[in-house]
Amino acid sequence: MKTAAIIGSAGYTGQETLDRVLGHPGLSLLAAGSNTFAGQPGSVLDPRLDDSFTFVTNDEAAASGADVIFLCTGNEAAAAFQPPAGAVVIDLSGVHRLLDQTLAQRYYKLTPGAWSYGLPEISPATGPLIANPGCHATTAALALAPARGLTSKAVVDSKTGMTGAGRELKPTSHAGFVLENLSAYAVGSHRHAPEIEQTIGFPVAFVPHLLPVRRGVITTCYFEADADLRPLYESFYAGSKVVRLLPEGGIPELSRVQNTDAAEIGLFTDDATGMKIVICATDNLGKGAAGQAVQNANLALGLDETAGLRLKGVSV
Amino acid sequence: MKTAAIIGSAGYTGQETLDRVLGHPGLSLLAAGSNTFAGQPGSVLDPRLDDSFTFVTNDEAAASGADVIFLCTGNEAAAAFQPPAGAVVIDLSGVHRLLDQTLAQRYYKLTPGAWSYGLPEISPATGPLIANPGCHATTAALALAPARGLTSKAVVDSKTGMTGAGRELKPTSHAGFVLENLSAYAVGSHRHAPEIEQTIGFPVAFVPHLLPVRRGVITTCYFEADADLRPLYESFYAGSKVVRLLPEGGIPELSRVQNTDAAEIGLFTDDATGMKIVICATDNLGKGAAGQAVQNANLALGLDETAGLRLKGVSV
Amino acid sequence: MKTAAIIGSAGYTGQETLDRVLGHPGLSLLAAGSNTFAGQPGSVLDPRLDDSFTFVTNDEAAASGADVIFLCTGNEAAAAFQPPAGAVVIDLSGVHRLLDQTLAQRYYKLTPGAWSYGLPEISPATGPLIANPGCHATTAALALAPARGLTSKAVVDSKTGMTGAGRELKPTSHAGFVLENLSAYAVGSHRHAPEIEQTIGFPVAFVPHLLPVRRGVITTCYFEADADLRPLYESFYAGSKVVRLLPEGGIPELSRVQNTDAAEIGLFTDDATGMKIVICATDNLGKGAAGQAVQNANLALGLDETAGLRLKGVSV
Amino acid sequence: MKTAAIIGSAGYTGQETLDRVLGHPGLSLLAAGSNTFAGQPGSVLDPRLDDSFTFVTNDEAAASGADVIFLCTGNEAAAAFQPPAGAVVIDLSGVHRLLDQTLAQRYYKLTPGAWSYGLPEISPATGPLIANPGCHATTAALALAPARGLTSKAVVDSKTGMTGAGRELKPTSHAGFVLENLSAYAVGSHRHAPEIEQTIGFPVAFVPHLLPVRRGVITTCYFEADADLRPLYESFYAGSKVVRLLPEGGIPELSRVQNTDAAEIGLFTDDATGMKIVICATDNLGKGAAGQAVQNANLALGLDETAGLRLKGVSV
Repeated sequence: MKTAAIIGSAGYTGQETLDRVLGHPGLSLLAAGSNTFAGQPGSVLDPRLDDSFTFVTNDEAAASGADVIFLCTGNEAAAAFQPPAGAVVIDLSGVHRLLDQTLAQRYYKLTPGAWSYGLPEISPATGPLIANPGCHATTAALALAPARGLTSKAVVDSKTGMTGAGRELKPTSHAGFVLENLSAYAVGSHRHAPEIEQTIGFPVAFVPHLLPVRRGVITTCYFEADADLRPLYESFYAGSKVVRLLPEGGIPELSRVQNTDAAEIGLFTDDATGMKIVICATDNLGKGAAGQAVQNANLALGLDETAGLRLKGVSV
Repeated sequence: MKTAAIIGSAGYTGQETLDRVLGHPGLSLLAAGSNTFAGQPGSVLDPRLDDSFTFVTNDEAAASGADVIFLCTGNEAAAAFQPPAGAVVIDLSGVHRLLDQTLAQRYYKLTPGAWSYGLPEISPATGPLIANPGCHATTAALALAPARGLTSKAVVDSKTGMTGAGRELKPTSHAGFVLENLSAYAVGSHRHAPEIEQTIGFPVAFVPHLLPVRRGVITTCYFEADADLRPLYESFYAGSKVVRLLPEGGIPELSRVQNTDAAEIGLFTDDATGMKIVICATDNLGKGAAGQAVQNANLALGLDETAGLRLKGVSV
Repeated sequence: MKTAAIIGSAGYTGQETLDRVLGHPGLSLLAAGSNTFAGQPGSVLDPRLDDSFTFVTNDEAAASGADVIFLCTGNEAAAAFQPPAGAVVIDLSGVHRLLDQTLAQRYYKLTPGAWSYGLPEISPATGPLIANPGCHATTAALALAPARGLTSKAVVDSKTGMTGAGRELKPTSHAGFVLENLSAYAVGSHRHAPEIEQTIGFPVAFVPHLLPVRRGVITTCYFEADADLRPLYESFYAGSKVVRLLPEGGIPELSRVQNTDAAEIGLFTDDATGMKIVICATDNLGKGAAGQAVQNANLALGLDETAGLRLKGVSV
Repeated sequence: MKTAAIIGSAGYTGQETLDRVLGHPGLSLLAAGSNTFAGQPGSVLDPRLDDSFTFVTNDEAAASGADVIFLCTGNEAAAAFQPPAGAVVIDLSGVHRLLDQTLAQRYYKLTPGAWSYGLPEISPATGPLIANPGCHATTAALALAPARGLTSKAVVDSKTGMTGAGRELKPTSHAGFVLENLSAYAVGSHRHAPEIEQTIGFPVAFVPHLLPVRRGVITTCYFEADADLRPLYESFYAGSKVVRLLPEGGIPELSRVQNTDAAEIGLFTDDATGMKIVICATDNLGKGAAGQAVQNANLALGLDETAGLRLKGVSV
């Protein structure tokens, strides 16, 4: 049994990671850090938690000696975090995702260090300090990575549920703004675009939109390619327990990936232009955050890759 | 004062047209047709309607001698409709929109007749029998028409509210399917793609999605073009009371077009690829249906183009 | 033509009041106050506003000499506001609503002054300083006031849309909390309960809930009464242009009051217990806020009671 | 290992039951009936299902010899169903819920037979033919049963998500009707009112409302009682793994019961009237349908009461 500590347990990604750790057959919770709730029992965060553990400070969680540390904080705290020697650290924030020095400076005011980027199906992490991909970037990369070499660029129109933007209060997270709306943001200049390019190897025109749903990302990608995509994608995802390639005509649905750690992909060709269209759906808190974090931890700790993940079930 | 008749008053587009006719300074309601409610007072449809009129059959409405007939039925009934001599007819269904014989046969099993397509800002109708554009096609065409000549194709990622799909009951209109979802449909082969191409002059890779909102269309378009779009769009929409071109950086919002007959456009350039991104928002029942129908009627009847339209106000 | 000034134009109630003033046949906008936007043109708040006016500070708006001042601020600023001599002031905040000294102290830490409460259909204001009722209290009072004298108490189960809680950012206004939820709050102890009792004359067990909708209040009221309610309610609301009493069996719908200043009431008797059930629907920003504020202003200024109100139309 | 058959696997309750059976440690799926999909593999219903089973007709599923049959059909098919000798049958439809002859005739045109009503925490089933309670009735009964003997009647204001109304297409299930709405229905005369009374022993004034959410029921109950509810409820639900009584001040949240088979209850006293307020939340497809069906099956088959139920986790 390996041990886990969580830094920032009370945010959306922290709570979802806590949920997976508590149900994980190979991980036991050593320390749940929350500066807000330190010293208080688990039930203060959520009445579904009994009082079998007490929150500690984030510093205490970092120093707990856990085999894996899940860093579930905002960007600033993650940038300031000092990884303890010997631990696997999975950073769910954005700051360590860009490996190019110029881009890391431009988007996160940071010099990339010893971190590697871990998207297991495409670019598994290469060391113990692992930058966990963002939800838009994960979903777009899963849709496009098999097309590497076939095209020089793609359009990525991505839509995410509100938990994808964190528990922080912002005017754009106010329900009065979100309901009956679909709002594009950071049009043409989002820092997820270089993250996608870094993973798939070609540039994308990327527009993220906020959906009036709680959970789930749908990404619709368009590109030129002279190839039959299906055999390529089948081969790329052969044997994956996480990515489900739909049969001919199948359209990914949020309801089938919500509350799971799976991804669903559909392949199409446009009648009028001949362009390829690939649609991918994930749960922004599952494969787009905590699920992928646990998957990365499993790989780094030598556990079964999908242990503790939510990949079964056929809930409506 | 000109007179109006409505065929199919009880559907979404029929009721919205009725609403605009009742508030129109230059139109008076001569006949409200509804085979379901014929012989019953207006209040049977909606308690906000007093009993100042009684529904007639659709045939009676067609024969009422009105100056303009709004045809607010499904495709089948519209295809079978025989326009009375001398009347202006605005068809809000899809069947008369494709002017090319092959396409009209392929998508609607119909031979195009004497109908013309009326999108006033781009291709005003040229006769009294007017096919009113669809909501996706209107929104995409407004976003792309000024770019004609600059590009050879575009990606059109379009998202519409649920009233855009009509009051008919379908599995995909069930709220249990729609809520917490964003569903793509007819991927790569929607009949709105040729309608858009017919209006703007170049092909588009078009994917429509159903949003969990009641009203409103957001269309995000991507294309290659070596030009500064702003002066072109400013010139194209100069003087328009319907289309609002947002200043640099402005992102269209559904809340500002919902319950109106206006459109809102924002212009962007993508950092990574240099592609142009144009976002357009409309209300699928306003500029995307009944509002544009009244605008077409105004032009055909020699009334002020925007009489009776909802273009004012600053509601949150 | 009377003149109007708005204090706090950029909040939800401020913008809705601005919208009604700009379209009002008997009011002209003298000063739009906003400390955030002072010195900037109207379009900075919303691109639908042209630059025909420039925001001033709230102090400047207060000192503008307008015939009526709409106070659209939070509770603290409203409590500190010094009404200029001679002006009609409509306070849309909560602080001046409770006229009983003990209650005003308990809920708002305030000594009631010269303000009167203005709910035109039930208790019209009696002076120039007018406390505008809250959305829950308006909706409940419209449902229950005609039953005064018939019962000793009622249950009021009220549900409001998210714009009813203001543009302020709170954990409970985060869309990740609101979507797929219906959250009760302040159960059994909300300050709107005494406001309702003050208006209708008997106590209520009141539970407010937040709905995942943008606009609209639905209040379901239950009480014992040995009387046929219909003739009493018909008589109470005879001639009202604002309150629409539905015929037997009619159930109020949000869609028919959203974006309007009207209210809709349905009357029922419970089979099993014989209790009376009255359901009332309003728009929390219309009759529940800005619409009623303008109605109060019209009465205080001697204008037609419903001038500038949104009471027509049959939009879906 | 006991065996299970499902009649009507493709509806909401059928699919949720299938989901629980497939993950159940003590049940194996013997036959999945669906007249629509008979002869086709599981994946035709949902791509998450592999092809390890093939749908059979409902008649074949009924005759499969399974230890337990889950009847997941509409009311008509359930009324016509002939239970095979020796099997446990759990009927998730409404037809067998009312045990009084007059009420069964009035609401379902049926003579009650050998069926018993199974709400395990309150009135466990007494035979092998078990009527599974409705979602409104379950949630209300859990909120009110411990108060039996304390009061003579209650107000039950209940709100359910859209999957609570089944996959059948109705005007009131159209997303264009549901979104931005909260609609009361069957006001004062719903057949769930006698079902609640049958379970708790006193009458209720019951109004159901449709929420614009996918899953979840929130029921707010009001009644007079001279007693401290907390010790009574604590005692009533002591040891329950399904019902979670919240501590003082705790308000039930849909997010904590959605996608689970648990219930959450909060207790309050109203300041103004002294009335008791009890709020209960469940998932309409969990404790309100398939979860309770499996709980009933477990009890009838001598399995652990909560085997296969979803009662863990702390997902946001």
